[in-house]
Amino acid sequence: MNTKKFLLQEKDIPTAWYNIVADMKTKPLPPLNPQTHQPMKEEDFYPLFAKELSHQEMNQTDAWIEIPEQVRDMYKIWRPTPLVRAYGLEKYLDTPAHIYFKNESVSPVGSHKLNSAIAQAYYCKKEGVTNITTETGAGQWGAALSFAAKAFGLELAVYMVKVSYHQKPYRRSIMQTFGAQVIASPSMSTKAGRKILTEHPNYQGSLGTAISEAVELAMQTPNCKYTLGSVLNHVSLHQTVIGLEAEKQMEMAGEYPDVVIACFGGGSNFSGLSFPFLRHKLVDNKDIRVIAAEPASCPKLTRGVFQYDFGDEAGYTPMLPMFTLGHNFSPSNIHAGGLRYHGAGSIVSQLRKDGLMEAVDIPQLETFKAATIFAQAEGIIPAPESSHAIATAIREAEQAKLEGKSKVILFNLSGHGLIDMAAYDQYIANDLQNYEVTDEEVARNVSQLEKII
Amino acid sequence: MNTKKFLLQEKDIPTAWYNIVADMKTKPLPPLNPQTHQPMKEEDFYPLFAKELSHQEMNQTDAWIEIPEQVRDMYKIWRPTPLVRAYGLEKYLDTPAHIYFKNESVSPVGSHKLNSAIAQAYYCKKEGVTNITTETGAGQWGAALSFAAKAFGLELAVYMVKVSYHQKPYRRSIMQTFGAQVIASPSMSTKAGRKILTEHPNYQGSLGTAISEAVELAMQTPNCKYTLGSVLNHVSLHQTVIGLEAEKQMEMAGEYPDVVIACFGGGSNFSGLSFPFLRHKLVDNKDIRVIAAEPASCPKLTRGVFQYDFGDEAGYTPMLPMFTLGHNFSPSNIHAGGLRYHGAGSIVSQLRKDGLMEAVDIPQLETFKAATIFAQAEGIIPAPESSHAIATAIREAEQAKLEGKSKVILFNLSGHGLIDMAAYDQYIANDLQNYEVTDEEVARNVSQLEKII
Repeated sequence: MNTKKFLLQEKDIPTAWYNIVADMKTKPLPPLNPQTHQPMKEEDFYPLFAKELSHQEMNQTDAWIEIPEQVRDMYKIWRPTPLVRAYGLEKYLDTPAHIYFKNESVSPVGSHKLNSAIAQAYYCKKEGVTNITTETGAGQWGAALSFAAKAFGLELAVYMVKVSYHQKPYRRSIMQTFGAQVIASPSMSTKAGRKILTEHPNYQGSLGTAISEAVELAMQTPNCKYTLGSVLNHVSLHQTVIGLEAEKQMEMAGEYPDVVIACFGGGSNFSGLSFPFLRHKLVDNKDIRVIAAEPASCPKLTRGVFQYDFGDEAGYTPMLPMFTLGHNFSPSNIHAGGLRYHGAGSIVSQLRKDGLMEAVDIPQLETFKAATIFAQAEGIIPAPESSHAIATAIREAEQAKLEGKSKVILFNLSGHGLIDMAAYDQYIANDLQNYEVTDEEVARNVSQLEKII
Repeated sequence: MNTKKFLLQEKDIPTAWYNIVADMKTKPLPPLNPQTHQPMKEEDFYPLFAKELSHQEMNQTDAWIEIPEQVRDMYKIWRPTPLVRAYGLEKYLDTPAHIYFKNESVSPVGSHKLNSAIAQAYYCKKEGVTNITTETGAGQWGAALSFAAKAFGLELAVYMVKVSYHQKPYRRSIMQTFGAQVIASPSMSTKAGRKILTEHPNYQGSLGTAISEAVELAMQTPNCKYTLGSVLNHVSLHQTVIGLEAEKQMEMAGEYPDVVIACFGGGSNFSGLSFPFLRHKLVDNKDIRVIAAEPASCPKLTRGVFQYDFGDEAGYTPMLPMFTLGHNFSPSNIHAGGLRYHGAGSIVSQLRKDGLMEAVDIPQLETFKAATIFAQAEGIIPAPESSHAIATAIREAEQAKLEGKSKVILFNLSGHGLIDMAAYDQYIANDLQNYEVTDEEVARNVSQLEKII
């Protein structure tokens, strides 16, 4: 066997994040004030986010944003992450394709989420913030932010979607071990939570509701900011370390990807891997395909509408131009909790609208089949979210075999699935099903949106 | 911050394992036939183990055993593992000591166990074996062997201690996802299992009983061998890749350890990290301390006797010269399941007898306190087993602070604790206790041993 892992040294950790907006011909439309529907300025975000993060959110001119030294030092805990040639998977598929994956699952919290958690905690601390809030679905973002908050000496309150709080107690324990306070959402601690609990006493929560609660708490607590693990531009920015490293590592491997694949929830790991490669397309006209892999039960990029929508259920957040299923869309209870979100970030939505990227939607059973093949071939049990990327990579590799063509595939293994074994148990026991959203459901949800575009 | 991780490349994966027995002035006493009490020869192990493994088990002359290329190729999946400078922990402890850990938790199955699982599966396959059996307690070894067996196309049956089978369902799911058959032990599938279930219908199992079942199944199945994840010489041999890599990495760091620490169950990760450093002591008279960290509830090296004893509960296995609490010793139900074993391997037992190493025993609550400090300081949630090494490293670092002395500490992070979060939950809820074995209990168990030495 030839080289399996392409390893960089600490000195190769990128020194700047890549801000794709600077290179986009058509910039994303601006966020709108949720009450007035007026375009928002950087300063309008200050009550919610650290100033530097607000600046990054609105920055349309600087393609490269320097990574602060303290953030790079924290990155050294687990970065650079390996790029892996998936020889085992290639052999199993008997494909002419060369398959590579960027292994973000080696992060101590088990996913790529730490790339932005560290950055957000750093800027909050630097600006004198003492408390931060957030929400988490499956718990990957919450776990990452819990460690980041502890590392920078911030107090953290996490609103965790109630169904996950009870179904994934281990992710809650991880956050608590790192010292965070974890509250099941909806809760009685916020107006938004009390309202929904009064109307639906047994409501098991959603990301949209948890965001409303976390935003409300941040707005009402002195010296407190809100943080988010996906969707927003500054989150995508921080995640570009993934693709920037992968770029160097593909060079070490002496290959260039024909297709780059990542799973898609709000866009954080997708943007992270793909934006540095999309840069070659935007700046150098390079021919490269980029695919977002969505769950069939939550297909905003493949079947949603491009429209201004809220990021949360209660309508507290700015309105963003997004491919959306509507902020009241309630996705089926699939195991890829991190992909159960109604909308796509505004950069990705614009790229999709401009035909610069593709999207596919994958049924749940196909993702678990792909995950099991991958685990047995490569030794790593993938997160249910990441398994959407694996399933898409397998589709592409099988297509290459059918066509008898060579093809270089790169996907992001955004996290491992060791905290998701209950889902694998159900799969082994033949106790899982596919969910597909109906056209009527999409139309009904979308019809409730205010038509701004 | 200076360099945090010391990273080797794939070409730096050791090409030979280190067999410490060749360098020991006093060799370990031979294993004895369980019936006749006569010293066993290499051939006597053939019914149980692959021939090459039997040869390694009895090899007292070759200090270096070449690692087959296919094994090195599989090692490339996760090796070389990082050596990490624990700046976060040093800062928290405010100690003058420099603390390093070898991070074996990055293995895809979460622990160092894969180092030997790959080697054992390889030799079995090479010799035409089709089926293998083993036992597992907490499940780390079983998970590692499940992937290794799949990688080499072997069928695997794992007897998992019943209490863990039910308390740690996720480790069972991991093994099943890799394609292994997992049976709760004691089971009705073996004579040994039926006997104990007849006498004690609700018996929740022990490693000793699971070993008896796995050995019995292997002996009665055509083309089937038994495999073990610790205790034996060939297992320790395979694990020396840990210390051999760490040796190079400490050189990269420009330091040499004053003290080397690893947790101790049967000896696999302890031997793996420490033997290459003990070599400097044996061969070059280097002044270095080596410490095995045991649980206070299962302290064979600190409070057991040096005596011939069986490896299993039913008395099927060869008798080994070991520090033991007696093969019928039933350790308390601590969360470090991998350390709940009555005896130490014969090499380590001889080294301990000859004063070449130290041992300490640590109460459960101290290990969880250390684990939480480590998690918050370094971002990695450690396995309850590894937390014994962390607690010992913290004791040494605090001693250095008291004495105002510089000291270089190296310990092995043998695995992560992401599948053990239920234990952390109990710790957070103040629901854990210490267990200490009484002198009477040790004396009673040990008095039942046949006095051969």
